[in-house]
Amino acid sequence: MPLVVVGTVAYDTVTTEAGYRKESLGGSATYFAISSSFFTKVGIVAVVGNDFADDDKKLLDSYGINTTGLEIAEGKTFRWQAIYDPKNLNNRRTIDTQLNVFEDFSPKLSSSQRKSDYLFLGNIHPTLQLKVLEQMDSRPKTVGLDTMDLWIDNNREELTRTIGLVDILFMDDREVKLFTQENNVFKAAKTILAMGPRVIVVKKGEHGVLLFNESDIFAVPAFPITDVIDPTGAGDCFAGGFMGHLANTEDHSVVGLRKSAIAGTVMGSLAVEKFSTQKFISISNEDINERFRSIVTMSTFDPLDDHETLSTLNPNGIYLAGDLN
Amino acid sequence: MPLVVVGTVAYDTVTTEAGYRKESLGGSATYFAISSSFFTKVGIVAVVGNDFADDDKKLLDSYGINTTGLEIAEGKTFRWQAIYDPKNLNNRRTIDTQLNVFEDFSPKLSSSQRKSDYLFLGNIHPTLQLKVLEQMDSRPKTVGLDTMDLWIDNNREELTRTIGLVDILFMDDREVKLFTQENNVFKAAKTILAMGPRVIVVKKGEHGVLLFNESDIFAVPAFPITDVIDPTGAGDCFAGGFMGHLANTEDHSVVGLRKSAIAGTVMGSLAVEKFSTQKFISISNEDINERFRSIVTMSTFDPLDDHETLSTLNPNGIYLAGDLN
Repeated sequence: MPLVVVGTVAYDTVTTEAGYRKESLGGSATYFAISSSFFTKVGIVAVVGNDFADDDKKLLDSYGINTTGLEIAEGKTFRWQAIYDPKNLNNRRTIDTQLNVFEDFSPKLSSSQRKSDYLFLGNIHPTLQLKVLEQMDSRPKTVGLDTMDLWIDNNREELTRTIGLVDILFMDDREVKLFTQENNVFKAAKTILAMGPRVIVVKKGEHGVLLFNESDIFAVPAFPITDVIDPTGAGDCFAGGFMGHLANTEDHSVVGLRKSAIAGTVMGSLAVEKFSTQKFISISNEDINERFRSIVTMSTFDPLDDHETLSTLNPNGIYLAGDLN
Repeated sequence: MPLVVVGTVAYDTVTTEAGYRKESLGGSATYFAISSSFFTKVGIVAVVGNDFADDDKKLLDSYGINTTGLEIAEGKTFRWQAIYDPKNLNNRRTIDTQLNVFEDFSPKLSSSQRKSDYLFLGNIHPTLQLKVLEQMDSRPKTVGLDTMDLWIDNNREELTRTIGLVDILFMDDREVKLFTQENNVFKAAKTILAMGPRVIVVKKGEHGVLLFNESDIFAVPAFPITDVIDPTGAGDCFAGGFMGHLANTEDHSVVGLRKSAIAGTVMGSLAVEKFSTQKFISISNEDINERFRSIVTMSTFDPLDDHETLSTLNPNGIYLAGDLN
């Protein structure tokens, strides 16, 4: 299949200004896979416990996600619990993390997954990320990587080694500054570009993203969301839209990468409008392209009047995800 | 003259990561006037003490700024002293403020200034801002206003009244949230648009600006500056570029306002590259337009390949400011 993601599948308990949701489907691989499924065929490599609900498995299937790499282990699925600061959604407090079956997870790629052209290493321990990369039959065309402050603080050496082997690095602005010990984001990006990746995507939440690609810098504004319900998974959905669109178009030109960054922005903005992954159940290609055009119009000073669209998986169809539910 | 600014002319003592500068020329009216002078004829209404240096007066003159409204009063010029947090330039600590002659300042517009089509009410007490507006012979075509947290906290009622009478409001993102008691910037802007102004410019420092104009939202990224020497005056230079370009073009269309927002971004980005207003001494139209095109390229996903330029005051000339120094 064109795209494979390795990461977590979890049950998240979150409290936001909009409410409280107990043990709803989450995890980096879940969000990434659902988001990317709008653009390409995607396979998931992750582990869940034998408490993983049939309905959640069916939900993943309904998006056309290949779940042959979803291992079911004896025990409980990974659990995560957090509270978001109502005054500043960028601040969240993790209340509880139960690794459960994830504690002994050793990702194993199937023979078809080992041939994928596009690989995304979701936010897990950098040594696990490396293990996945090493299982590939040959170097994929493009490897993306996401990480977090925990690995930057505690596993800098392993993380640096893994980052040195990937093409596209996704980090938020606090992480790039923490990782490089550099307060200026432009200097920080330049430092990381010298470490291996050819593309850096700096996610800035409500301030959008900055895409660094050799000498090119592209700024994508955030889509204006007035009611953020649940920010969980926005970054993974961004990465899913980006990698999914790139795997679909295979357009690695400056414009192609820029367009993929907007695709990511669209998917991240959708993610936050409902709890868990619920927003995506009712999303059509037209919803995606409407938001794409809004973002282009918001950032192009002399607005385009054309009919440019993103390359979705089923360009002429209405997406059917959720029908199995 | 087309544009008049009322505000402060000051001697600033600042400490940044790049160094320390004692009592160099500053103040909202100074920065605004110098920035706007690249686009239009501008007059200044402010007060200084009899310690105001001849060289500083000559510097203003060298930019073609009309200084007939610069009152010289018995006493000392306004002094301000601040230290910028080297880890986060958005945080600065004011060490000392000496109002001096500014304490009894009652702005008086000359008869030619009262006829100006464009008026900018720099960051001073909202009642003083109102007094200036009331002196105009007729309602100017466009009135811009800047303010700060001090007036929002202590003079909300007067500020709200003055804001209700202006066309373009300039605030940073913390100020719009403080003023509206709303954590979402898009909701906050909508609230303010209902209070009178037809345009809101939300300044976000390294994250650029958001321009709200009825139903249009435009995001301008910050120009990538890797070495910020002194952030003082960046907001005033932004407003000066915006209002100056607008006064020059008189283009109030969506595209015209958007272009003025980029003009402002260009001027704000120049301001921070040297202490005080020093950067502008050596700036040409071509420097301005090069940065304009960079910003357009950074934010347009399919980069423009045209030769669009900003409307500077002397489109075919090299700017001569600083020659008198």
